[in-house]
Amino acid sequence: MSGTVTIAVIGGTGSLGAAIAGRLARAGHRVVVGSRDAERAQEGAAAIGPDVIGMSNADAARAGDLLIVAVPFAAQQSTLAEIAPGAVGKIVVDTTVPLVPPKVMRVQLPAEGSAAVRAQVLLGEGVRVVSALHNVAADRLASGEDVACDVLVFGDDRDARAQVVTLIEAMGMRGLHAGSLANSAAAEAMTSVLIFLNKTYKVHGAGIRVTGNLTIPE
Amino acid sequence: MSGTVTIAVIGGTGSLGAAIAGRLARAGHRVVVGSRDAERAQEGAAAIGPDVIGMSNADAARAGDLLIVAVPFAAQQSTLAEIAPGAVGKIVVDTTVPLVPPKVMRVQLPAEGSAAVRAQVLLGEGVRVVSALHNVAADRLASGEDVACDVLVFGDDRDARAQVVTLIEAMGMRGLHAGSLANSAAAEAMTSVLIFLNKTYKVHGAGIRVTGNLTIPE
Repeated sequence: MSGTVTIAVIGGTGSLGAAIAGRLARAGHRVVVGSRDAERAQEGAAAIGPDVIGMSNADAARAGDLLIVAVPFAAQQSTLAEIAPGAVGKIVVDTTVPLVPPKVMRVQLPAEGSAAVRAQVLLGEGVRVVSALHNVAADRLASGEDVACDVLVFGDDRDARAQVVTLIEAMGMRGLHAGSLANSAAAEAMTSVLIFLNKTYKVHGAGIRVTGNLTIPE
Repeated sequence: MSGTVTIAVIGGTGSLGAAIAGRLARAGHRVVVGSRDAERAQEGAAAIGPDVIGMSNADAARAGDLLIVAVPFAAQQSTLAEIAPGAVGKIVVDTTVPLVPPKVMRVQLPAEGSAAVRAQVLLGEGVRVVSALHNVAADRLASGEDVACDVLVFGDDRDARAQVVTLIEAMGMRGLHAGSLANSAAAEAMTSVLIFLNKTYKVHGAGIRVTGNLTIPE
């Protein structure tokens, strides 16, 4: 994926979205950040980097060639409705984790089986949904340090998934093809487990790594 | 958990069950293995070790102080019915992964949300169900080598979960408290992802490790 592709980070003023936008901008990608409020998006964009542009989520979706959605589960449905007109024909990377407060340490997958499948249902067949970045701590990502976490990438379209794996690598992490969108349930559920582990073992930023000497095919 | 506790491995003639029984026997535990067929159980027990005893699943359940169930998803319901009378008042460790052939690389969680919650529903409130060992390759476990995989341990009863964490450590792995039985969905779903990773990256025995410098509390 070349630097001439524009990546729109929807919900780009939140902690995860801003961290994603920052990593992508530092990797040389053209980045726009969206927010429900265009003015807030402009402030957020300026804080991320001089070349980052802020606009409303709907405008950012139209401006981006590839969209990354980073919003809380409670905002997933309304946000996808905002971006749907601009998303047609594009890849949408959904990072939504179905955390249901107050019991965020308890796995509570949605009726569709995963937030990723829910995103595909909401956006319709004209959009290729890929899901990723469920298990990465936002502050680690923002810091530019090693996040010590592999990124499992899910999607029903192999080519779309491969583009996202490349993007994850540009962000300094190992991205792994992890199967169909239905498989996203594994990583989404794991986030509640990681929050539980953080609390139980009094650490911050527990993550997962896949063992078994996986080598990335050329 | 002392060596005077008898551990019954239900489905102990299968590849995972035999590997678990072998590790426990080598760790000095008193082990009985159960099978649907008592004669096959006796043959399997002899192959595992001289002090391992084989019997029917129902008899093994009565003989064990703690039970470990290692059967395919398709046999979970009938096996739990066999052991239910002998399981009352005991801890039952369910290792069931809800793989649905032929699509074993696709996450297909049961209606209950996880095989572990299904086990608790089937066995009833008189049994403390804990789930574990979903992501460990049976042949690695059988070999006695490092399995390169953490074991996430789930259960609604903290004391029961702690006993299983200790048992996992005796088997030479790191066991981690990973939350409620509902959270078992994360590890169960991860098994389909690991099978996908094995195939996609042409490896064998992909596993997961939790990062973040978790130290086990005293």
